[in-house]
Amino acid sequence: MLVEMERLIEVLAKLPAIGRRSAQRMAMRMLSQPSHALLKQIVAALQDADGNLGICSECGSITERERDPCRICGDPNRDSRLLCLVESPGDLEIMESSQSFNGRYHVLGGRLSPARKQGPKNLQIPRLLKRVEDGGVREILLALNTDVESDATAAYLRELLVQRGVAVSRVAMGLPAGSGISYADPLTLKRAVAARQRF
Amino acid sequence: MLVEMERLIEVLAKLPAIGRRSAQRMAMRMLSQPSHALLKQIVAALQDADGNLGICSECGSITERERDPCRICGDPNRDSRLLCLVESPGDLEIMESSQSFNGRYHVLGGRLSPARKQGPKNLQIPRLLKRVEDGGVREILLALNTDVESDATAAYLRELLVQRGVAVSRVAMGLPAGSGISYADPLTLKRAVAARQRF
Repeated sequence: MLVEMERLIEVLAKLPAIGRRSAQRMAMRMLSQPSHALLKQIVAALQDADGNLGICSECGSITERERDPCRICGDPNRDSRLLCLVESPGDLEIMESSQSFNGRYHVLGGRLSPARKQGPKNLQIPRLLKRVEDGGVREILLALNTDVESDATAAYLRELLVQRGVAVSRVAMGLPAGSGISYADPLTLKRAVAARQRF
Repeated sequence: MLVEMERLIEVLAKLPAIGRRSAQRMAMRMLSQPSHALLKQIVAALQDADGNLGICSECGSITERERDPCRICGDPNRDSRLLCLVESPGDLEIMESSQSFNGRYHVLGGRLSPARKQGPKNLQIPRLLKRVEDGGVREILLALNTDVESDATAAYLRELLVQRGVAVSRVAMGLPAGSGISYADPLTLKRAVAARQRF
């Protein structure tokens, strides 16, 4: 295998959900074109994003370099007393596109994970506590995932936040829309029954 | 969604087997890091590959820009009378790593596909015929995939090549190693039975 190819495959395989095999296919596709057109497009888009995008110093999400705080943090029409905690900027985008929330956000940058040696210091928890202590935040809505690590993260944060006198809520767990009982796993059903609502 | 992000997602989604959702996750991961370290590594690897790699004018595979013909085409110890036809440079790598072949290669650059409007002119068939007509090639081994389009491509090429007096063979189809009868689909079994060998 050619050195440049090997190195390219290696770095592409660091992307989420991209294994060595996918990385190899991606590299091969880009290098099979005589003029490397797609490769050049990707380089241009990456450099453009690198130069123009940064992290919002308020919520930790992605923003234009010249717009800090970001569009959401700087929007006076959004309820600053309500903070939605998400694991990643991608989750923030998904929350936003669902139009289900009109407060502000805080991006955690992952979840607690002993397996991946990810402790509270690796996440944006100190910044979250700072925001709470600065005052004005009444409720924190945890929009975390529903796996074991995220559950542990949620429990850990509830402890810290309740101590500081802020209300903590979590998005409901239950059956997804458009699905059915026969597709639900036991844990989902258990949670859906425990959280049953009068109808 | 930010313009630079949108554009990045769009170009990443042009990569093979990368949908919009995966492209989004890839972009988010790269832009979530405050210093964009992974993004910068990827840009560097892409630029390096772009600058140093090209296409072998002999076989159509990927090679260093300053080494044309490529390592394989230029190797006097490889049998130039035997040409293995593969669909992509990736398939060539896989053939090579299996150490099952000591001839040379010809990369087709895809397969005939009416659905994707890919005809003989979009593939390296004229170059293949030129190589055959230049003389020296005795046998062409088709190492194509085993789907309908590749089968049609193989049949089309056999016609062209036999007319030019060259022997055409195709890698055997049958049960994969380490598998079993109960995992095989009907077509694989049918082919394995038709090609049964005395034992």
